[in-house]
Amino acid sequence: MSYQHIQQAAYEANMQLPKLGLVLFTFGNVSVVDRSLNVFAIKPSGVPYGELTPEKMVIVDLDGKTVHGALRPSSDTLTHAVLYKHWTNIGSIVHTHSTYATAWAQTQRDIPVYGTTHADHTTADIPCAAPMNDEMIKGNYEYETGIQIIDCLQQKGLNYEDVEMMLVGNHAPFTWGKTPAKAVYNSAVLENIAQMAFLTEQINPQAQRLKDALVKKHFERKHGPDSYYGQS
Amino acid sequence: MSYQHIQQAAYEANMQLPKLGLVLFTFGNVSVVDRSLNVFAIKPSGVPYGELTPEKMVIVDLDGKTVHGALRPSSDTLTHAVLYKHWTNIGSIVHTHSTYATAWAQTQRDIPVYGTTHADHTTADIPCAAPMNDEMIKGNYEYETGIQIIDCLQQKGLNYEDVEMMLVGNHAPFTWGKTPAKAVYNSAVLENIAQMAFLTEQINPQAQRLKDALVKKHFERKHGPDSYYGQS
Amino acid sequence: MSYQHIQQAAYEANMQLPKLGLVLFTFGNVSVVDRSLNVFAIKPSGVPYGELTPEKMVIVDLDGKTVHGALRPSSDTLTHAVLYKHWTNIGSIVHTHSTYATAWAQTQRDIPVYGTTHADHTTADIPCAAPMNDEMIKGNYEYETGIQIIDCLQQKGLNYEDVEMMLVGNHAPFTWGKTPAKAVYNSAVLENIAQMAFLTEQINPQAQRLKDALVKKHFERKHGPDSYYGQS
Amino acid sequence: MSYQHIQQAAYEANMQLPKLGLVLFTFGNVSVVDRSLNVFAIKPSGVPYGELTPEKMVIVDLDGKTVHGALRPSSDTLTHAVLYKHWTNIGSIVHTHSTYATAWAQTQRDIPVYGTTHADHTTADIPCAAPMNDEMIKGNYEYETGIQIIDCLQQKGLNYEDVEMMLVGNHAPFTWGKTPAKAVYNSAVLENIAQMAFLTEQINPQAQRLKDALVKKHFERKHGPDSYYGQS
Repeated sequence: MSYQHIQQAAYEANMQLPKLGLVLFTFGNVSVVDRSLNVFAIKPSGVPYGELTPEKMVIVDLDGKTVHGALRPSSDTLTHAVLYKHWTNIGSIVHTHSTYATAWAQTQRDIPVYGTTHADHTTADIPCAAPMNDEMIKGNYEYETGIQIIDCLQQKGLNYEDVEMMLVGNHAPFTWGKTPAKAVYNSAVLENIAQMAFLTEQINPQAQRLKDALVKKHFERKHGPDSYYGQS
Repeated sequence: MSYQHIQQAAYEANMQLPKLGLVLFTFGNVSVVDRSLNVFAIKPSGVPYGELTPEKMVIVDLDGKTVHGALRPSSDTLTHAVLYKHWTNIGSIVHTHSTYATAWAQTQRDIPVYGTTHADHTTADIPCAAPMNDEMIKGNYEYETGIQIIDCLQQKGLNYEDVEMMLVGNHAPFTWGKTPAKAVYNSAVLENIAQMAFLTEQINPQAQRLKDALVKKHFERKHGPDSYYGQS
Repeated sequence: MSYQHIQQAAYEANMQLPKLGLVLFTFGNVSVVDRSLNVFAIKPSGVPYGELTPEKMVIVDLDGKTVHGALRPSSDTLTHAVLYKHWTNIGSIVHTHSTYATAWAQTQRDIPVYGTTHADHTTADIPCAAPMNDEMIKGNYEYETGIQIIDCLQQKGLNYEDVEMMLVGNHAPFTWGKTPAKAVYNSAVLENIAQMAFLTEQINPQAQRLKDALVKKHFERKHGPDSYYGQS
Repeated sequence: MSYQHIQQAAYEANMQLPKLGLVLFTFGNVSVVDRSLNVFAIKPSGVPYGELTPEKMVIVDLDGKTVHGALRPSSDTLTHAVLYKHWTNIGSIVHTHSTYATAWAQTQRDIPVYGTTHADHTTADIPCAAPMNDEMIKGNYEYETGIQIIDCLQQKGLNYEDVEMMLVGNHAPFTWGKTPAKAVYNSAVLENIAQMAFLTEQINPQAQRLKDALVKKHFERKHGPDSYYGQS
């Protein structure tokens, strides 16, 4: 069984995180799934980015069990596994502790949609999942983090294909996408949106959410049947 | 018909945006007009800066119709076209989502003239156009964005030759100039002014606008018949 | 007597500070101790990072007396000496004036534990030692700074092996660790935690400390007998 | 008459400004004086840093008259001339529009001494000169800016040899020193102090000035007969 294709893809995506300024030391990880094999490749735990190689990416099944690789996978592996299992159309997941997105997560607030940069990517406020209860924390913590993410989206009536980024309260952001490039892109966009929303509220504490017509217009410029952004 | 001169100029100006830290991914575009041909060259939509070449710049007429080039032009093309049509003395337009300027746009506030860095470039507060009404948004949105910019300047009694930078409410900045170098320069200056105005209000919420005599003095140092900044 | 091993280690650790963006000019220093020889190697005072070499590292005993080297050691040498003498299990100390951590020190506030990034490293708020009294300042100032750090931890019921980072009120941060790599790592982590805590309070002035179950969980993921972060 | 030595020194000092992140485009200038010749070398006006050469530095006398060089000197030349004429012990002057220092200047507030980083360099709050009156602005503006700086220090009972950095209200910082290296160093230190003072007040609006004993101690560590910082 060869896993080289997802190891290579996961390696390249992980290496984008320091280049985009989204991680300090080892505070982040990217995984890439193969839906036909039902396994994903993920960064080994605590290994510095400078020492990563494609071969070091650990192969894990959708229950979080290592099926290939000498190293221990990321401590967040079970969260990735839960999301892949429930969200069958995603191909990659990114977790970082990027500065502004993490600060928002620490406030337990959703990030309001203040402008078109945000609306170009999702019509919703970026949801922040409430911290889980103590029972869940003491239990299978990383598994429960996945459940917490899934439940939060559901409770807000949102869909993981429309909203590809989220905050876990008091923790940090998770993003995902059909491809590793899209999932990493979403992490950088989220950090940018988080910084601009912070500044917006500092400059004008009475700043209002973007009005509905503009939210809709900008999202449709980039998505859906009548989109006209990018090359078709 | 050869468009190489404006393609080359537009290519070089676009490549300045990431170097100056004004764009994330593809969130920006520069166009350069040829007034004798009545066409402008503009960045293709959604193409990463690393993949741009002069040949990929799309040639568009002042009604926004593509006259040369295989790629789809920037989704903001109609806004550029409207501005070129109405403002006959500008040679280039820049649109970015630079962090601080965009945050101000999201607050729907003009940027007050707090210091000489601002006054060196314009005597007015940097205007922020109010979001357009829902009818216009649902209509020809990018065309209406151009009209919105023109109307905003006019309502404030300002002239596009004196004020070469503006915010579109809830969206992001647009700048322009006689040359591509000047239009790009204005985008970087606006981002700098926006950051310093944010900091000024944080440090002193009672900060006052620069007094008129200083506004006038600094602007005249750089502009007009008695200017003495730079090499003549 | 050869000191090359600690000179080399101190040199390499000092050179990490500008790379990590933790120092301006010469505003920082790292020392590395040899417990069998009871001496440590420390940066010479006021020498630019670009001119450092391993040989220039000064060898000092645990009373702060220079035992080897032509240059004057860091003006903070006595503080390092005191800490090595009292805390027998540390191998390295780092002092910087990194921007966000120093700003917190200037406020004389502890940094509250707002998220898991903080809890991954310590369960306590990052302590800020109160400024010493005037008598101590006029006396052996750098020696007293060491005493002040030790007393502050003790008064808060904390242990230097659990909390490897601290702020000295109105001054700046000190961090330490079993190895130079860990001590430098702690300085970068502290700066990151300090920035995110600042942002957290700006975004939500009512932000709450991380709840106990999460503090405990995250710390235990990285430390103690059941830790599962990194490669064992 | 050869001016190469001060042209070379002014060139090298000017080139430090973009490296230290203190200038955008041409928003800054450094001059270096020769006290035996009573002339100084200064950056030409509006010339991008990338196009500077030692030969392009303009030689000006202490009345601001160009005595050598084909280019027009910086528009701030008369301010430099006034300072050199009155302050006979300085060897170099730096003017920038660095972000945080300029924001403080725009608030017309002195920068309070909040910590030892500040006290290491001066015992005083960094003074901010009030904007000059309209008569002076309409008159010989750059000359009056020099007078304004000198008067401000005098009114506060400060000495240009103790305080080598200042803000001009609504404008931007000026720094100076015995050597070009020291004057440029002071500009970078001022920007750092300005950023940390901003953060300090954001984190704790009730933050107190550093107490006198610490101000005195830290300044004397670096200056005066008993200083023990750096290599003697």
